[in-house]
Order: sequence, then structure tokens, then C-alpha cells
Amino acid sequence: MERILSSEVSAHVGARVRLAGWLHAKRDLGSVSFGILRDRAGLAQIVASSPLELQLETVFEVEADAVAAPQAPGGAELREPVFHVLSEPVATPPVELRRPKLKENLPFVLDHAAVALRHPRQRAAFEVAAASLTGFRAALDGLGFTEISTPKIVAAATESGANVFTLDFFGQTAYLAQSPQLYKQVMVGVFERVYETGHVFRAEPHDTTRHLAEYTSLDAELGFVADHLDVMRVVREVIASMVTSVRERAPRAVALLGVELPEVPAEIPSVHFADTGVDDVDLAPADERRLCEHHGELVFVTGYPMAKRPFYTHPEPERPQYSNSFDLLFRGLEIVTGGQRLHRYEDYVAALGGEIEPFAGYLAAFRHGMPPHGGFALGLERWVARLVGAENIRETTLFPRDRTRLAP
Amino acid sequence: MERILSSEVSAHVGARVRLAGWLHAKRDLGSVSFGILRDRAGLAQIVASSPLELQLETVFEVEADAVAAPQAPGGAELREPVFHVLSEPVATPPVELRRPKLKENLPFVLDHAAVALRHPRQRAAFEVAAASLTGFRAALDGLGFTEISTPKIVAAATESGANVFTLDFFGQTAYLAQSPQLYKQVMVGVFERVYETGHVFRAEPHDTTRHLAEYTSLDAELGFVADHLDVMRVVREVIASMVTSVRERAPRAVALLGVELPEVPAEIPSVHFADTGVDDVDLAPADERRLCEHHGELVFVTGYPMAKRPFYTHPEPERPQYSNSFDLLFRGLEIVTGGQRLHRYEDYVAALGGEIEPFAGYLAAFRHGMPPHGGFALGLERWVARLVGAENIRETTLFPRDRTRLAP
Repeated sequence: MERILSSEVSAHVGARVRLAGWLHAKRDLGSVSFGILRDRAGLAQIVASSPLELQLETVFEVEADAVAAPQAPGGAELREPVFHVLSEPVATPPVELRRPKLKENLPFVLDHAAVALRHPRQRAAFEVAAASLTGFRAALDGLGFTEISTPKIVAAATESGANVFTLDFFGQTAYLAQSPQLYKQVMVGVFERVYETGHVFRAEPHDTTRHLAEYTSLDAELGFVADHLDVMRVVREVIASMVTSVRERAPRAVALLGVELPEVPAEIPSVHFADTGVDDVDLAPADERRLCEHHGELVFVTGYPMAKRPFYTHPEPERPQYSNSFDLLFRGLEIVTGGQRLHRYEDYVAALGGEIEPFAGYLAAFRHGMPPHGGFALGLERWVARLVGAENIRETTLFPRDRTRLAP
Repeated sequence: MERILSSEVSAHVGARVRLAGWLHAKRDLGSVSFGILRDRAGLAQIVASSPLELQLETVFEVEADAVAAPQAPGGAELREPVFHVLSEPVATPPVELRRPKLKENLPFVLDHAAVALRHPRQRAAFEVAAASLTGFRAALDGLGFTEISTPKIVAAATESGANVFTLDFFGQTAYLAQSPQLYKQVMVGVFERVYETGHVFRAEPHDTTRHLAEYTSLDAELGFVADHLDVMRVVREVIASMVTSVRERAPRAVALLGVELPEVPAEIPSVHFADTGVDDVDLAPADERRLCEHHGELVFVTGYPMAKRPFYTHPEPERPQYSNSFDLLFRGLEIVTGGQRLHRYEDYVAALGGEIEPFAGYLAAFRHGMPPHGGFALGLERWVARLVGAENIRETTLFPRDRTRLAP
């Protein structure tokens, strides 16, 4: 008999069916006992006339009658079950998976990720992440971008000397890439439009709810732009596609978590840094929240002062203390950073103050002709955290890494 | 005027058009001069009545008349051009991009990747790689797999103590993941079916044409299998989907490189290790070539001796010196490794010889119920090398990393 999923029981009412999964919960009422099977599609209720002699998280197959039952998950339940155990646990689960929400605190949940992630609410956030990734790629594939894969072990701590991990590479000192920035720019010279979804590494010394030492960066870069506004138009398409993909591919997670998906306007509102009223070179978290309250849940802030942007940033032609850069704020938090980059070799030599030797392989692209270009990076875990309403980015990271956490 | 691509000129014959790109080649015949524009779609010929005063790799826009010309690339050329220079190079390209194939040797080409990758043949391999990735994901999305993202900084050199990179993680010793193996198994407990496309790191001390210190691993893992044969069926679907995707999404690269795409049979031929005639615990490269000569360009070898497989490998029930594992050989080279894994906690304790402390976060999954499962990993750069007929895996890696190469 072909296995069916828990979500398919109601379509088989009246038939004998076979399911497989974990024993998520059980309750013995004497004359009748209930079990909940959990599989990748959800939950199914099993009703038996004798006590279930199985421990929680036992992996089993079950053959049973599919019977209509309005009060059961999915409107049907399994009766007259015959169990076949595939694998028995050796201990009681460290978290109570049967609860609608886990009641354990976050560090405990993270320490016990192998089991805690099995909770339907915990795993739902990662269904949203997977759907977001698909939406990101779909938008860019449709716009003629090419996916690339660039090295994470690099020779120079290029973007900034701070916050970089060092490793021994066959006797040489090497670093973990803080972003694919320099490589994706080089690849604009090859494919014009490129993207990469990969891990980036930041030796963040601070413990905050929005920084990690390792995260998933969704990067894109495109050539032949007029300025950063062309890049922002691509960001808008990408965000709209990610929202659509989450709606279509992760409906169960959206419903379970009560996710309110944003309406992405045809043009996302935009505020120049000079008009934010901020008397500093960067926004504070409180400024980001305030701007979203005033302008909407998605807001571009453009023109950040050059003083706070990296060396490859293109200045604003008329007001060179400002830059052709932007952040996208979503529900009070920056989730995308991007902008136009310098594209002339002389501009790089000037921006680097002549310290060009560590950048030779990168500057080769500019020595040999590069178009005006720009790009952006989106932190996947932050995006998902905003979307599902998670307070801490660690809730939307499978196995987070920070100053004090290197396992599991 | 909207920009069109080089591939679209023939569709605009008779009209004034605008293109943008790099000056790929030029030739001055006195009364007439020719230039070749290169953009992300290919090449277009420009005919001018005066010498082109532009250096090779100049980035420019051009407005011109699109004219039918059977001898030109794409059957049309650009006449009466008016140029607008966007960016001027400061040096002559280090490689001769105008040649049908680069004539420089591989180390030189790799040293000058930023420019050498612009050559149509060089970049074509990476169009094949991008299409392969899309095909990998499409097959697994269709089979109910969930994409995951697991850490590359890990606490223990888990799979094998050898060939691992060490780094300083906020004062602790950490390692770069040699594969997502342990994490993807844990995630079978959450989603049943998972995949990840990401970087893996091997401190390979050998210089060979088929090993790198960093490469792209396409990993999948699935639960509720009977044995490794169920995993091999998924591999077959994935390979077929990758071939289809390359055919449909990278036709220009396939034509340019003369790629012969394999026919993927409904069932890929399979040979048990015991029947290969090899009197050792592993196959030598010559054995792999011989097996493909005898059985076809795609061949599974199953049942590798347990002695050569990692600790999580499931033995063959009837002959426990052999394993429920497999490699997929493609045109004489192993491109996929996979198999059924152990799934009972006691089996892991025995396999690890009781040394379980470094594996606590991983073993938690098995303590709390795991189904029979298995999976596989495919090396993207190797796959592409076999497909495009590259002798050296460095030809299908954008910026390769090995014992002596850390830049560009």
C-alpha cells in the first residue's frame, strides 16, 4: 500500500490507508486512546481501543481506516490502527512538542535543536525561508541574472579589517568572506547580472537579537545601471516575488504562524537620508522604527553619508558627502543594503588611498573596463524574522552561531 | 531607446537600435573597420567607415542600424554606429579574448580570472553550472524536499579528523564543515526530505585535477527509505532534471562548447562492488574509467566495503562487510556519493566506539527517533567538468582554491 501524508487523510475517507511518521502526542482515556502522528505535511489523529504502548517520538508506520471526524486535524482521523515500529527513541524528548507553542526558553530550545525543530511552529519559519529563497531566484532568473558561486576562503580581509575570522590555509593566513561583494562585482564584467545565495561570516563581538557570526546572504549585482534607482527597482521585484512565493509555497506555515504578508507597492516609498531628520552619519534602530511608522512597512532610505559606507560606494554626483546607496527597511529593521558602486579604476585607486596590492585580483576587473553597476544584499534570516514576527534572529536560524554558541 | 541584446539584432533588421557592452575585438581595413561588441547574450558585429578609436574592453553604448548580414554572428550586423563610451580600460587585456579559444595556459588564465572569464567559452561552463543548479532544485522541489541552510563553522572535525581547516572562533577552536552530512541527517527528523546547495571545505594536501579545497556540494537526504535503492532512484531523477535544465536553459553554452548531453536511462545501470573484479576496498581511477567503458556513461557502483565508508554508513544486511552505499560514475569519474545511513542510536554508539561526546548535538536526533534514511552529495564543479569535457576541475570553478592558490 502506498504511503499517504497526514494532509491527504481526508481525501481517503472510507479507505484503508498507510501513513508513516513520529508519535507527536498521546492520551489514554481508558476505553479509548488517542495518538497524533506527525509527518512532513502536518498532523493526523489516531484513535485506538487499547492504550498506545509507544513512547513519544517513536517512528512508525500505521495502517488504519480513514474516517471523517470534524473535530480532528484536517477533518478526518485514523481508526483500527495496526502499528509497525521503525525506530524507538531511547529517551523522553527534552521539549514538550505536543504544546501549541514550545514553552522552553530560547537558549534551551537552541541547545536541543535536533528535537525542538520538529515542533510544527518551529519548523514553519524554515518553510518560509525555503519559499523565500525560491522567490528570490525566480525574480532574478526572470530578469536575466546568472547564479554564481564564489569563494568563502579569501586572501585579504577586504571589506573591513574588523569582524573577520582568520584561518590557517596550508600555512598561509586566510580569512572567511564577510560577503561576496568583491567577487560579484568582478562577475558583472562576465555576466552583467549575477546573484549568489550563500553563507557569509562576521566575527560580531556583540550579542544582539539581529546579528549572527554566520548567516545566509542573498546577493545580486547588475551592470549598465543609470544609478542606484535602477538597483532599487530590482529590489522591489525581488521582494514582491519572495512574498508571492511564500504565499504560494508555504501556505501552511503562513496560516500556522499567522504571518501577515506585506503588500508590496509598485514603487516602494523612499526617503533621502538628508530628509530623515537624523543628525548623524547613520540611522539608529529607533530611527528605523520611526521611519516605518511614518512611511509604511517597506521604506527605502537613500543617500547615506559616504562616511559610513564602504570604499566601493558611489557618491551622489551633486552632493558628494552623500552616496548613491540605500537600505530597505521592513517593519522597522534594515533587511537590504545596496547601492551604486564605483566603476572606474582611478576612482578605486583614490578610494583605497593607493593601498591596492591586496585588491589586485579585484581591481583587474576595473583596469579592463567595467560598466556602471550596483547591487544589494538581503539577510535571509532577518527577512524571515520580520515576516514571522520573531523577536530574535536565532529563532529563524537552524543552528545559529554567535560569540558564545558554536554547537549544535 | 530601449537597449537590446546582441542576440536580438537580427529581429530588429531595418531599425535603429541601441546596444551596450564591451569591445571584444576590432580590425581596421583602412576604408572600413570592424568591431565586435560583447554583452551577456553573445557577440554582435559593428561596421564603421572610420577606424575605431577605442581600446579593447572599452565599455560603451552604441546606436546603429541593424542590417542583415549572413556572414556576421547571428545573421545581422550594426552599421552607421554612434558610440558613447561608459568606461575606459587603463591597460591592454592580459589574455587575447578575440581568439576562439584562449591560448594561455591554465595557471595564467586562473591568475587573470577577472578578464579571462569574459571569454565566451570560459563563461559558458558557468552557464552550464547555473542551469545544473536550477535542475537539481527543480527535481527535489517536485519530490517534496525542503531547502535548508546549515552552518559551515562547526565545533568538531566530525567526519574525519584529516583534511579539515581550523579557525579561531572567539577564542575557541572551530572547523570548516567538510560537508553538511550530520546536519542534513538531523533535518530528516524535521522535514523528512531536505536538500542544501552550499560550499564545503577540504584541506586536500594533494594537487590533482579533480580535488579542490573549496567546492559546491549539492546535498540531499530523505527519510522513510527501504534502503539505498530508494536513494538511487532520487539520484536518477535529479540527474535527468539537471540534464534537461542544461538543455533548456543553457542552449548557447551547449552549442558553443559542443556539449553532448547524456541520455539518462529510466534505470541507470548498477554494478555491485563485489562484481567489479577489484581486489581492494576502493576503486582506483582506472577502475572507474573501465566500468564506464563496459556499462555506459552513467553507472552506479553499489556495496562499497564498509572499511572505506564513513561511520554513519549502513551495512548490507546479508553481507555486513559490504555497505548499502553507492557512487555514481559519469564518463569515468565519480560525481555522486551516497547511501543508506544508520538510524538507531545504539548503532551510532557502536560505530563511534563510544566516543560520543563531540557528536552530542547530532546524536540527539537518533536518541529521539529517526526513520531509516539515506542521501547523497554531488560535486557541482566535477559534474560540469565531465559535461563540458574539461580536463581539470579548476576550469569549471570561478576562483579555485587549492594548496597553492588563495587568490584571486
